[in-house]
Amino acid sequence: MKATLMFKSGDVRVVEVPDPVIQHPTEALIRVTYACVCGSDLHPYHDLEDTPEGRRMGHEAIGVVEEVGDDVRTLSVGDTVIVPFAWSDGTCAFCQDGITTSCIHGGFFDGAPSATQAEKLIVPEADGTAVTIPAGTDESYMPSLLTLSDVYLTGYHAAIRGDVGPGKIVTVIGDGAVGLSAVLASKQLGAETIILMGRHTDRTDLGRDFGATHVVAERGDEGVAKVMDITGGEGSHVVLEAVGHMPAYDQAVGIVRPGGTISRVGVPQYEEAAVGMSSLFGKNATLTGGPATVRAYLEAAIPQVLHGTIDPGRVFDREMPLDQISDAYKLMDDREALKVLIRP
Amino acid sequence: MKATLMFKSGDVRVVEVPDPVIQHPTEALIRVTYACVCGSDLHPYHDLEDTPEGRRMGHEAIGVVEEVGDDVRTLSVGDTVIVPFAWSDGTCAFCQDGITTSCIHGGFFDGAPSATQAEKLIVPEADGTAVTIPAGTDESYMPSLLTLSDVYLTGYHAAIRGDVGPGKIVTVIGDGAVGLSAVLASKQLGAETIILMGRHTDRTDLGRDFGATHVVAERGDEGVAKVMDITGGEGSHVVLEAVGHMPAYDQAVGIVRPGGTISRVGVPQYEEAAVGMSSLFGKNATLTGGPATVRAYLEAAIPQVLHGTIDPGRVFDREMPLDQISDAYKLMDDREALKVLIRP
Repeated sequence: MKATLMFKSGDVRVVEVPDPVIQHPTEALIRVTYACVCGSDLHPYHDLEDTPEGRRMGHEAIGVVEEVGDDVRTLSVGDTVIVPFAWSDGTCAFCQDGITTSCIHGGFFDGAPSATQAEKLIVPEADGTAVTIPAGTDESYMPSLLTLSDVYLTGYHAAIRGDVGPGKIVTVIGDGAVGLSAVLASKQLGAETIILMGRHTDRTDLGRDFGATHVVAERGDEGVAKVMDITGGEGSHVVLEAVGHMPAYDQAVGIVRPGGTISRVGVPQYEEAAVGMSSLFGKNATLTGGPATVRAYLEAAIPQVLHGTIDPGRVFDREMPLDQISDAYKLMDDREALKVLIRP
Repeated sequence: MKATLMFKSGDVRVVEVPDPVIQHPTEALIRVTYACVCGSDLHPYHDLEDTPEGRRMGHEAIGVVEEVGDDVRTLSVGDTVIVPFAWSDGTCAFCQDGITTSCIHGGFFDGAPSATQAEKLIVPEADGTAVTIPAGTDESYMPSLLTLSDVYLTGYHAAIRGDVGPGKIVTVIGDGAVGLSAVLASKQLGAETIILMGRHTDRTDLGRDFGATHVVAERGDEGVAKVMDITGGEGSHVVLEAVGHMPAYDQAVGIVRPGGTISRVGVPQYEEAAVGMSSLFGKNATLTGGPATVRAYLEAAIPQVLHGTIDPGRVFDREMPLDQISDAYKLMDDREALKVLIRP
């Protein structure tokens, strides 16, 4: 079958690899019908060192079940399923807490032997991981359903962990697909003032459609001053940080209101950060967030898509066949595409 | 009048200073009847540089109102009041949020021109700050009522911000008076498993009286292993960090359960700390806490003391007159006293 491999920064190729085979009774084999490129795929695209054997890419997928292991109970051959970016058994203590990304039998498709930018995919812990889409679902819903494997529910996770709700001023840092998803999720959760920090007009325009009431194009101290001005000098109750770089963290610390919350879903490209008296502690600010527990939210989100309550699939502004995925990486890296849908 | 001044590390003296005078119509003058030495007073006791003019010390007090400014409405001469360690107007946006330590007209008695280890005290924003104790309250309640100016409600703040409640495993790091208060507060809030990390048996014995179900004397990796063992390898839902030094932070990160919360009230003696993928972010851990918003909890706590529901005054194991306060600092620094009550 064909699969996407990255061999070093900037070098993404679709190559022929052996068809994946079920090796454990809890696995399922799916034929991938929809995949996509994630903003986080651009991190190795920038800095992956020479990897002669290649690194399998992709962690978002919709597909059709082709085969199930002997212990799989909830999936049947022919089902169309959404596969979240992390697998989880659904039964361990942490899964029961809803922290599915910390499942004791869990893992991440990123860097795993079988990944989603390919024709076929092995799903470990298939019962706990894959969620079936109702039979007969119209194809037009598939882009939005695909966002439930990561990007929309990552924005939603930021908002949930940040306790977004009515009466809260929410600021979203980052106008990538996750940031825009965080705007849409905040709107769903009842936030009335949603400030989107981003400087790409085509993206912030979609952000306004999703519910942003203000857009701040400035960054750094200027951006902080602008948000403080909008909030009457008081700051933002909740800051959703959807970038992962240190300047975004510092911006979040600068604009969070005393007693407020910074919720991060941008994968931190740093380990240490300011948390002391002059940053978080002094103003009783809370820092939360982490890898999105997509699986815990997935079942409730499907009807929201199918009833038209949310249309997060609008983050896809291009569609390409798997063969052209290296162009998709380049377009996203050049910011000519927001997010590219891939059809294997 | 007599006041406590620190002139450099280790040099605390009671000296004669001019009587304080009301300078703003929102102030009140109180005669201090109860004060005490705080664990945080030991930070300058360790590292204050030469300060020839002296630094006024103390931020916890009960006293009798001797005079009020023209704008003070809620206090009368003769009232006995509790004065929290920070003053606040009670009306600004942040006070209304309950984040009284971020009051826009607020401040901290620590380092202020008028401080509490003295015969008299000026209380700024007196209406918002001081809380009256019912007339005729028996003197025997005063030590517990004094803890509502800081130490007990600082432990309570840790527990509230950490969302302690029934069904939660809580670990308290630190067996100082704040840590023991955090144990008592966690018990009040319904926690069933309370692990106290501390190695001074006389203190941890009081911690057991306050509600600790387990005591872990080990520190560092060994301490982490012990807590993980007690929690069946899953970690602690809530970690209350009542120390403020980096090893305590690292310990907290080591024992917090995925999706759990670290709540800090030990004043951080560091600005940067690990918050990235391998510490907080990876396991969706939340970091919260800050200067305790004592004033927001004070009115509700007074009846708890007067009804005998809580007896946080048990953290005082010595009582001394103001003249001997330098001995009180030394006893606490040598860990021969847990917390010393001062009678000016």
